[in-house]
Amino acid sequence: MRLLFATHNANKLAEARQILGAKGIEIDHLDMEYEEPRGEDTSEIAEKSARGLFSGIRKPLFLEDAGLFIEALNGFPGPYSAWVFRKMGYQGILDLLKGKGSRRAHFKSSVAYADDNGVRVFEGKVEGSIAMQAGGESGFGYDPVFVPDGYGETFAEMDRAIKNSISHRKMALEKLAGHLLSPS
Amino acid sequence: MRLLFATHNANKLAEARQILGAKGIEIDHLDMEYEEPRGEDTSEIAEKSARGLFSGIRKPLFLEDAGLFIEALNGFPGPYSAWVFRKMGYQGILDLLKGKGSRRAHFKSSVAYADDNGVRVFEGKVEGSIAMQAGGESGFGYDPVFVPDGYGETFAEMDRAIKNSISHRKMALEKLAGHLLSPS
Repeated sequence: MRLLFATHNANKLAEARQILGAKGIEIDHLDMEYEEPRGEDTSEIAEKSARGLFSGIRKPLFLEDAGLFIEALNGFPGPYSAWVFRKMGYQGILDLLKGKGSRRAHFKSSVAYADDNGVRVFEGKVEGSIAMQAGGESGFGYDPVFVPDGYGETFAEMDRAIKNSISHRKMALEKLAGHLLSPS
Repeated sequence: MRLLFATHNANKLAEARQILGAKGIEIDHLDMEYEEPRGEDTSEIAEKSARGLFSGIRKPLFLEDAGLFIEALNGFPGPYSAWVFRKMGYQGILDLLKGKGSRRAHFKSSVAYADDNGVRVFEGKVEGSIAMQAGGESGFGYDPVFVPDGYGETFAEMDRAIKNSISHRKMALEKLAGHLLSPS
């Protein structure tokens, strides 16, 4: 089975190839601009984006919208995580949380898959907290400041294989694989 | 002359009625959802939004997209100023600028007007800086932390009439009025 993955992010592409490849699902890369609507929820954004993209491409494809949602910041940077990261990096998040009582946060991944039958969205979520300071070199984006519950290190300090085994993206992609391999 | 102004913001509506009313242009309020694309530039966002909205309404209308662009934050919060404000208020901006050397910023307003001839965009811009602490009760949004160049107080500390005489929105709306009253 082959699918198109629409992304501009080489890290996400590698992560998806690793996770879906292990299930025998091969990924072709679709590196093109697509319209992303505004919204508060990554699943709604992914669903609409996939619908729009599929209407032009007409081949089975998926895309992913993910975000880091910080409780004390009312869900910021959420659906605009990538944009905020380009503006201020993870240091901005650390600055905003100085003196805040709670550092609770979660990563959410919404994978939208589109084919002739319509669009399906699969979600994955990892609960955790924002570290007091950045740590680690692995991963990308906010990985150096996110500590998943049950672990004493950030996503960026973890072995890549361990992160990929517990990540929000992994969970969402596993659900996609389950759907593709035994559609009901 | 009567125009529709598409906005959810009662403050913007009042400001526009005051500025355009003085020119004999009356404003009806269009309070409905419209699709706003993502983008880095308020003019591009306003132009596309107005085009989309006009295609359904088919009556002369305008809308405005405005943003606060902070140099030391690479233009953050920019096109997402309203969303960021809902998440963290102006206090988030003060937190992000602690220890930063430059506090330079500008407000930009992009007014997009649509009629059967197409869409025209009019821009207004006010240069200034972010105050060390918030001041004033007047205005809305980031007004309590923005000090326009040449003034010793924030937009929110100023008399409303003075702010409305120098604001980015005023400039853009004046250009719209000029276009409507003597189209060339």
